[in-house]
Amino acid sequence: MTSDGIAVQPDASAAPRGRRSRRAVDVPTLVAGARKGDARSVARLISLVEDASPALREVAAALAPHTGQAQVIGLTGSPGVGKSTSTTALVRALRQAGKRVGVLAVDPSSPFSGGALLGDRVRMQDHAGDSGVFIRSMASRGHLGGLSWATPQALRVLDAAGCDVVLIETVGVGQSELEIASLADTTLVLVAPGMGDGIQAAKAGILEVADVFVVNKADRDGADQTVRDLRYMLSLGGRHSEAGHWRPPICRTVAARDADNGVEEVLAKIEEHRQWLEASGEGHRRRSERAAREIEAIALATLRGRMGDVRGSAALGALADEVVGGSTDPYRAADELLGQL
Amino acid sequence: MTSDGIAVQPDASAAPRGRRSRRAVDVPTLVAGARKGDARSVARLISLVEDASPALREVAAALAPHTGQAQVIGLTGSPGVGKSTSTTALVRALRQAGKRVGVLAVDPSSPFSGGALLGDRVRMQDHAGDSGVFIRSMASRGHLGGLSWATPQALRVLDAAGCDVVLIETVGVGQSELEIASLADTTLVLVAPGMGDGIQAAKAGILEVADVFVVNKADRDGADQTVRDLRYMLSLGGRHSEAGHWRPPICRTVAARDADNGVEEVLAKIEEHRQWLEASGEGHRRRSERAAREIEAIALATLRGRMGDVRGSAALGALADEVVGGSTDPYRAADELLGQL
Repeated sequence: MTSDGIAVQPDASAAPRGRRSRRAVDVPTLVAGARKGDARSVARLISLVEDASPALREVAAALAPHTGQAQVIGLTGSPGVGKSTSTTALVRALRQAGKRVGVLAVDPSSPFSGGALLGDRVRMQDHAGDSGVFIRSMASRGHLGGLSWATPQALRVLDAAGCDVVLIETVGVGQSELEIASLADTTLVLVAPGMGDGIQAAKAGILEVADVFVVNKADRDGADQTVRDLRYMLSLGGRHSEAGHWRPPICRTVAARDADNGVEEVLAKIEEHRQWLEASGEGHRRRSERAAREIEAIALATLRGRMGDVRGSAALGALADEVVGGSTDPYRAADELLGQL
Repeated sequence: MTSDGIAVQPDASAAPRGRRSRRAVDVPTLVAGARKGDARSVARLISLVEDASPALREVAAALAPHTGQAQVIGLTGSPGVGKSTSTTALVRALRQAGKRVGVLAVDPSSPFSGGALLGDRVRMQDHAGDSGVFIRSMASRGHLGGLSWATPQALRVLDAAGCDVVLIETVGVGQSELEIASLADTTLVLVAPGMGDGIQAAKAGILEVADVFVVNKADRDGADQTVRDLRYMLSLGGRHSEAGHWRPPICRTVAARDADNGVEEVLAKIEEHRQWLEASGEGHRRRSERAAREIEAIALATLRGRMGDVRGSAALGALADEVVGGSTDPYRAADELLGQL
């Protein structure tokens, strides 16, 4: 990622990663700075989260009281549908409405798509220097597929920094749509005419995760057909056909246009969805479910970590020898091992 | 699997699986029966292990004092190299040498290969009724790929039943070679002329796990070339070239022949390898490492089970709501959750 157009830079001026992580961190000062909208503090906190700094737990604890306010909007779609252009247009419209906006762009680690993404990213330049916008690219890594494990914590940093809206943009490949839906209050699925996205969406279970469909590049041939395809697929049922459920609207945009681009309607549908989330209780259910899954993941990672500590340890070696010698069995040995954790 | 030719049948006469598992189980009597060589007791114990019966822990504990004697020989190779024929020939030779033999055949769950395997299995008929041979097919299931998670425990049943040698036969697909090597004292890798197995072996890291190579169907064209290929690949190094390491010999067999089939030489090489394992300490290291991995796997499964108990529980829901409300953070919540396990 280039440093152009990034209000929040990945702390490039600081010491190398390894040293930076071990440097003493003044978490309360950083959190206070972030809450005042200081871009450097926000950047530093996200870096601490991304680097899984030893201060991670302190950061999480300090952020907690200041979270829960931001509306989280996920934005996904296949490469080429215009995600970055749409993000730019949404950010511009939200800024005009006086909202403070955070953007987390989760790049796939795939090396061959890096170039194209960097090119897209430069288009965000028009927000550079706007202190009401925080933009941060995150590496996607770990076992989660499309979304970085650090994304939920980075989201909390932007939440605590007073963002009214946080946009999470991710390339729609494989698992990532499902993951973004588990993080976002409202998930936008972008499609474009003539890309067979409708069919792909149906296959990938996108219908189940989309709260709002956006047919971008709606001035192109085939846009009507794409809308019809989506409408037909929605008519086939799934959860959307049940009473009391949200029926995803289909918007048309030409995000690359400076005006009359349809983005206002998307924002209106997002607002409608927000109200539905609140009225139906689904909003709280989603956030609670999201937190539960995050707690579980951390708990399992902690256990795995402790298990890693005993791997190759004298204790495990001794237990293994007892099993080989027949003086105990592997189940009793496992119990003893767990007792030592 | 058919019941033909199986000294130890999968307890087909008993009640259906679910009911059988809940039936009261007299583990001490079964273990005593197995130690006396009673085929029904052995079959029943392996079924309890395979079904993950509630009595699993009791079975493991009762078996432990009687284990550690059997020599475990793994046998793997691509489909078509003649694994079942070779197993039959090895069993016959071992019986002639007065050894008590157990066979665990791990079938891949792949439905399209089932037919061929059943066909192969019928060839084991000539050992039917021989009380010195226990033969059991096991389903391969779970996340372990080629080998069933129950295999190590089934192996202990046969060990406790007084088998001098247990052969584990598995179709060499993907991970299973590596898994069989982690279970076996000595791993035989079967190849056949003209199948490109040599190249495949090099690719799949088979060179690292093979203790003895067996070129079966050695009367066919191309057998010399296959031997040369293997020899060349072994000469390229790896662990085998280091001093004090075992250098895998290459045997030739025509396992389908009743006599003069080369199997005696394979048994001689297995015996050489056994002596090397003992003299070098590698034998104990392998068994200890194997037990350590099994203990770890059971411990992790236990933890996951406990985690499953809290999934959707009131405790997790309450913690999640606290995270959503900002009164705690997910790390502290995870600690609390772990405290409750």
